[in-house]
Amino acid sequence: MKRTSLVQTQFLSAQDVATIVVEVGVEATLSRMADFIFEDYLRWQDFDKCARVASHSTDGVIELMPIADAKTYAFKYVNGHPKNTLAGLPTVMAFGVLADVATGIPELLSELTLTTALRTAAMSAVAARALARPGSRSMALIGNGAQSEFQALAFHHLLGIQEIRLFDTDPEATQKLMQNLQHTSLRLIDCDSIAQAVRGADIVTTVTADKTNATILTPDLIEPGMHINGVGGDCPGKTELHADVLRMASVFVQYEPQTRIEGDLQQLPADFAVTELWQVLRQEAPGRTSAQEVTVFDSVGFALEDYSALRYMRDAASELGLGQLVSLIPDLPNPKDLFSLIAPKAQVASHKLALAA
Amino acid sequence: MKRTSLVQTQFLSAQDVATIVVEVGVEATLSRMADFIFEDYLRWQDFDKCARVASHSTDGVIELMPIADAKTYAFKYVNGHPKNTLAGLPTVMAFGVLADVATGIPELLSELTLTTALRTAAMSAVAARALARPGSRSMALIGNGAQSEFQALAFHHLLGIQEIRLFDTDPEATQKLMQNLQHTSLRLIDCDSIAQAVRGADIVTTVTADKTNATILTPDLIEPGMHINGVGGDCPGKTELHADVLRMASVFVQYEPQTRIEGDLQQLPADFAVTELWQVLRQEAPGRTSAQEVTVFDSVGFALEDYSALRYMRDAASELGLGQLVSLIPDLPNPKDLFSLIAPKAQVASHKLALAA
Repeated sequence: MKRTSLVQTQFLSAQDVATIVVEVGVEATLSRMADFIFEDYLRWQDFDKCARVASHSTDGVIELMPIADAKTYAFKYVNGHPKNTLAGLPTVMAFGVLADVATGIPELLSELTLTTALRTAAMSAVAARALARPGSRSMALIGNGAQSEFQALAFHHLLGIQEIRLFDTDPEATQKLMQNLQHTSLRLIDCDSIAQAVRGADIVTTVTADKTNATILTPDLIEPGMHINGVGGDCPGKTELHADVLRMASVFVQYEPQTRIEGDLQQLPADFAVTELWQVLRQEAPGRTSAQEVTVFDSVGFALEDYSALRYMRDAASELGLGQLVSLIPDLPNPKDLFSLIAPKAQVASHKLALAA
Repeated sequence: MKRTSLVQTQFLSAQDVATIVVEVGVEATLSRMADFIFEDYLRWQDFDKCARVASHSTDGVIELMPIADAKTYAFKYVNGHPKNTLAGLPTVMAFGVLADVATGIPELLSELTLTTALRTAAMSAVAARALARPGSRSMALIGNGAQSEFQALAFHHLLGIQEIRLFDTDPEATQKLMQNLQHTSLRLIDCDSIAQAVRGADIVTTVTADKTNATILTPDLIEPGMHINGVGGDCPGKTELHADVLRMASVFVQYEPQTRIEGDLQQLPADFAVTELWQVLRQEAPGRTSAQEVTVFDSVGFALEDYSALRYMRDAASELGLGQLVSLIPDLPNPKDLFSLIAPKAQVASHKLALAA
């Protein structure tokens, strides 16, 4: 008798997710992903949260980022190895899972390398919509690596940024970005220094990769009213902002316990006041209060964004008919009879089944 | 120009792992896996360890179990949902990953449901070889569910157990076990009560699934010299042994910080003395010291066993030519150009590549 498998895992490969983004369009993908993130942040209290679990080594870090509400559990595996590019490898690689809380079944296994770049940019835009000056039109983009185009497009499409002032210590990275975005209506300006890029910008996005306590932004560069979207300071010993930049600003974070460990905030004492973004999005705490205020979104990447992004990718894959089922969990006619998998007759039967399929 | 992919993930499905066990043989698989576990426990200090990260819900738990040495990072996803069997689903489902610490590349993605049953049994045998009375021949096996046959075979092949006295609240589970193991040389005895199963046994294995503070074993059942292999008490609120059973015994654990939270040990104060098993295996601490001593291995399942088991499965799959490559991480000609994945021309090129393949 043919029975339907009760335990199935849908697999979305890197190519599947790339196809989703191309089919849906990168603008619409960023916009919908931002909506998913916004919706999930509004119900912040529904989630069982923890700081991510990091395993540090000489040249990098590997992290697990779990989160769950009453219905769905999500986690992401992600590394950060800045020296990888020297060997032709990505700095950040990721994948993740959505699972059913009621049964524990891992229902979706998906690439998250491309998705992480998209969700990080969408998250930055969600924060900036609440924190940047209304009518912001220019952005400095410091760090023009793997994530930079996604940040540029998210701010272009979701905030109305028209001009982006670029700087990277690697001029080829900047050239790559300019080429990738040449057919958009963004005005892209290749700058010779961080100071030149930042001068006069409404928003400053830092998205550099070095695992070091860097000072990409110092207080002298900061102008009244700027919004700083600090993306690359996201690991102990990996910061981008001079501590005094934080001191002169109102600082907003995703999940305070994690940002205290990982964010630029790691440089400041535990009693330095910050506001969790969900409170601003729910209008339970003020965001920007004046046109002169300097705001900082000390972004580190929180599991909730991956939950939202996985949720989005699952829906999109289902609509487009993408992905394939993989046998991650054995399918057992009798769940108490795991041993049946390795009983000789079961092997014969499953071989026949495989041949018949 | 054709280039070789730098980032590849090997996938072992549930069927692949079942095939490995059938090809190698369950006895040899358990024996080699026990060797791998033993080797890794001898170099305990090489590992970056933490208690697993658990997400509890009404009917179950989902856990992430990471561990790493200087070269290899491993983690397991595993759930525990005792009521799943009512819906025809396994109580425990798992999968895991081996990754390269130097680069963060997830090199192996494998099923771990079947593998967990094997490695738990192999771990129990490694502990019992150090803790049970030499010459032990009979074992009580309380709980005859999904993991029970593996425990029976591990103790049969690796310790020389000849007689197993069975009890389960579900008589069908016991019948299933007796049928699955009918062609072995084990003497299997179906008992009417826990007391009947335990009486006179050299070793008592408890491997029940209920998420409750149960007292499968009470002090009156314990005889001098018994070794208790407590497998099912592995979660806050999920215990099998009466606290006084622990008090009358020498208690051995895998990783003390985790067992204090999850093991039967959770019932006792923080200063109740226990010994970590690696110390016994390295002969740096005594194991059993007399024929009259009662020993307890308060097993909860530690990430190191999964590291060992994944390592074993990777080697075995390689020898047998099993598994397939999956596109979990995108392959990028220029690692800083993640955006190339969704540039229209890249899509066309990769479509052509897919068609040509």
